[in-house]
Amino acid sequence: MTITLSTRLHDVRGSAIRDLLALTARPEVISLAGGLPGTDLLPRERIAQALATAVADPAAVQYGETAGLRPLREVVAEHESERLGRTMAAEAVVVTSGSQQALDLVARALLDPGDPVVVEDPVYVGALQVFQAAGATLHPVPVDADGMAVDVLADRLAAGLRPRLVHTVSSFHNPRGATLSPPRRAYLAELAERYGFLVVEDDPYGLLAFDGHPLPTPVAAHGDRVVRLGSASKVLAPALRVGWLTGPAPLCAAVERLKQCTDLCTSSLTQLVTAELLADHAWFDAHLDRLRAALHDRAGALTGAVAGVFGDAVTCSVPTGGMFCWLEFTDGTRPADLLPTALDHGVGYVPGTAFAVGQDLSAAARLCYASNPPAELHTAVERLGAAWGASAT
Amino acid sequence: MTITLSTRLHDVRGSAIRDLLALTARPEVISLAGGLPGTDLLPRERIAQALATAVADPAAVQYGETAGLRPLREVVAEHESERLGRTMAAEAVVVTSGSQQALDLVARALLDPGDPVVVEDPVYVGALQVFQAAGATLHPVPVDADGMAVDVLADRLAAGLRPRLVHTVSSFHNPRGATLSPPRRAYLAELAERYGFLVVEDDPYGLLAFDGHPLPTPVAAHGDRVVRLGSASKVLAPALRVGWLTGPAPLCAAVERLKQCTDLCTSSLTQLVTAELLADHAWFDAHLDRLRAALHDRAGALTGAVAGVFGDAVTCSVPTGGMFCWLEFTDGTRPADLLPTALDHGVGYVPGTAFAVGQDLSAAARLCYASNPPAELHTAVERLGAAWGASAT
Repeated sequence: MTITLSTRLHDVRGSAIRDLLALTARPEVISLAGGLPGTDLLPRERIAQALATAVADPAAVQYGETAGLRPLREVVAEHESERLGRTMAAEAVVVTSGSQQALDLVARALLDPGDPVVVEDPVYVGALQVFQAAGATLHPVPVDADGMAVDVLADRLAAGLRPRLVHTVSSFHNPRGATLSPPRRAYLAELAERYGFLVVEDDPYGLLAFDGHPLPTPVAAHGDRVVRLGSASKVLAPALRVGWLTGPAPLCAAVERLKQCTDLCTSSLTQLVTAELLADHAWFDAHLDRLRAALHDRAGALTGAVAGVFGDAVTCSVPTGGMFCWLEFTDGTRPADLLPTALDHGVGYVPGTAFAVGQDLSAAARLCYASNPPAELHTAVERLGAAWGASAT
Repeated sequence: MTITLSTRLHDVRGSAIRDLLALTARPEVISLAGGLPGTDLLPRERIAQALATAVADPAAVQYGETAGLRPLREVVAEHESERLGRTMAAEAVVVTSGSQQALDLVARALLDPGDPVVVEDPVYVGALQVFQAAGATLHPVPVDADGMAVDVLADRLAAGLRPRLVHTVSSFHNPRGATLSPPRRAYLAELAERYGFLVVEDDPYGLLAFDGHPLPTPVAAHGDRVVRLGSASKVLAPALRVGWLTGPAPLCAAVERLKQCTDLCTSSLTQLVTAELLADHAWFDAHLDRLRAALHDRAGALTGAVAGVFGDAVTCSVPTGGMFCWLEFTDGTRPADLLPTALDHGVGYVPGTAFAVGQDLSAAARLCYASNPPAELHTAVERLGAAWGASAT
C-alpha cells in the first residue's frame, strides 16, 4: 500500500544515533553511544517506595489537569526559584512528558514554517528534529569549550538575522560537554531583550555539576525572554517521563492548550512520585551528591583512559558535570569511518558528524561516560584503542 | 512581554469542555461533563501490585525503545489479532502516550496544511483540535444512532471529495454514544479502498460493550486502509498514559520517527504494568466483566432517571456500551443556556454545541454516566430537572 507522508516529515533528519543504538545494544558491545543515565545510578528503591505511597491515592490513577498536578508544579517552582534567585509561582510551570515534549510544544506553539531558529553546532539532535518537524529555517552557531559562541550570534544579529528562538543546552552540553560561561549567559539574555527573540534554555543536566563545581546560574536569571526546560530523567529516572517548562505566561498558556490535544496530560502517578522525591529535600540532596560523585568518577575514568591510550592523537573536553565527553582526533582519524571496526572490537560511540549542522565535525566523537562504571569505561577505551590501532595499519 | 504565537494555533478550538471542567470540579457539583472513567472502577490494587513487580526490573526506570517495549507490543498484537480475526505481528504496533498521542502523531505524519480530512459531527473534540493544529481542511459528516452516516460520506466522495483521512470513533461514540453498524463498517472500508483514503478508527471504548452485547467487529477487520487507535485509559487507568496504534507499516515507521522527537518514548514503567495486566487474561477478563456490568448499571440509572424526570421533553440515546449518553431536548430548551442554572443547582454536563462542526446541535447535551455511581446519577438528574423547571418559569 502506498502512503503519502507529510512533506514536512521529509525534512526531519533520521536519527543516525537511533540506528546506532540498535547496533550498540548487542550484549558484547560496551556502549558509550547512548545518552542514558547509568541504570545502576537510578534510585529505583526510593521510586518503588514513592510509587506505593502515590498509588494509595485514588486520584493517582485518574486523568489530571493538563498543566500538571499542583504539588509537582509547586515543588518545581520552589527549585526554580532557588536556581533563579527570584520567586516563581507554581502557575508559571507547565508539566510535560519529559523535557523533549516541552521542546516540541514550544516549537509548535511559536513557529510557522520558514521561521528562523538559531541552533547550536554541534546540536542536540532531538532539538534539530523538533525544529525540522516545525519547518523552521535553521541558523547554526558554533559551540566551543565555553558553550555557544554568543559573539558569533551577536554578529549575525547585527547583520540582520531575526530569529524567533535561540536554542541552547546551556549546561554540560549534549554532545559537546561544554557549559555556557557566565559572561556569555548575561550577553545572551541581553541580546534576547535587544532583538526580541526567546532563548530556549534546555537544561536537563544543570544539577549534575561535579562535586566541587558550583551549579551554573541559569540564563533565565539574567532576563525574562527565556523559556527554561527541565527534566526528572537525568536526576531521578527517565521512565517517569516527567519534564517541565517555565517561561512567559502567554507561552505557558499556548503550550498548555497544545498539550491538551497532544496527550491530554502527563501521568498523575509519575507526577506524584516526582513531586514526592523532589520535595524530600534531605533525600534528594543526598541522592544528587551521590550521583554527582559517581559521574565525576566515571568522567575521570574515561578521560584518564583516553589520555593513556591516545595521548596526543586526540584532544578531549574536560567534563565538569553532566554525562558527555567530546573527543577530537588530531591524527586524521575519522570516527565515522572507525565505527564499524570499533563495534567489531566491542565498543560503540557517536561520531561527531551525527551532531553537525554546518561545521565539519568529522574528526569528533561523543562519548557518554554516564552509563557504565569505571572498570567498563577502561575496557571500552582499551577496545577503542585496539580498533584505532587496527584501522591505522 | 508580547509573544507572537504560531498562526496555526489560532485555528485550534479552545476547549469549552476544559473551561467547563474547571466549573464542574467544584465539590458541590455532580459532574456528568468529563469523559472520565469512574475513579472507583479503576483497578488500583491490581495496578499497585503490578507496579511493585515492574519496578523490581532495573530496565523499568530507564528509557525504552521509541516504538514501545516488546512485551506490551506482543500482548496488544495478540488482543488485536483476536478482535480482527487475523494474525497481527508485534512489529505492527506502536505504543504511544495514550491514544490521543497516537492521533496527534498520525495527523502530523500524514497531513500537510490544507489537506482535507473528514470528521464526525458531533465530533470528539480532541480529534477536532488535532486536525485543526495540523492545518487540515475539515469536512464534517453527521453521526446518527448507527454511527457515522457513511452514505452521506459516499455522496461527498462521488461528488469529488478526496480526503487524506476519515476519522471515526467507531464504537460507543464520544459524544454521541452511537456504534457504527456492521454494514456501515464494511461500506466505510470499501470506500477507503475505492478512494484511497485512510480510516482512523479511534477505538478507546470498543471493549466496553455492556454485558449481553457482543464486542463490535473493528472496521479494520473489513480492510487494510485502516489505522486503529487503542488505549489502556478506559479499560485499565488513564494515569498509565498508554495507548497504541496499529496500521500500515510505512505509517507506523513515520509515527515512530515523529514520536522520537515528540517525547522519545512512553514510560517503561507504565508500559510494563499495562503489559502485565493485559497478559493476565483471567484477571483482565474478569475485570472487564465487572467494568461492563457497572457501566451498564450506571447507564440504566441515568437513562431511567432522565425518562422519569423529562418524559417527552427529551429524546435520549440508548447506550449499549461505553460512557456517554446523548440527550436532545424537544421542548426548545437549549442546554448551553441552561448550563449556568444547572451548575447553580449542582450538576454539570457538556452542551452539544461544544461538539458541533457544521450541524446545529443547540438542543443536545452529552451526559457521561461512567464517573458516578447510580445514586449520584439519580441525584444529578433530579438537580437537572429542577434547573430545567426553574429556567422554564
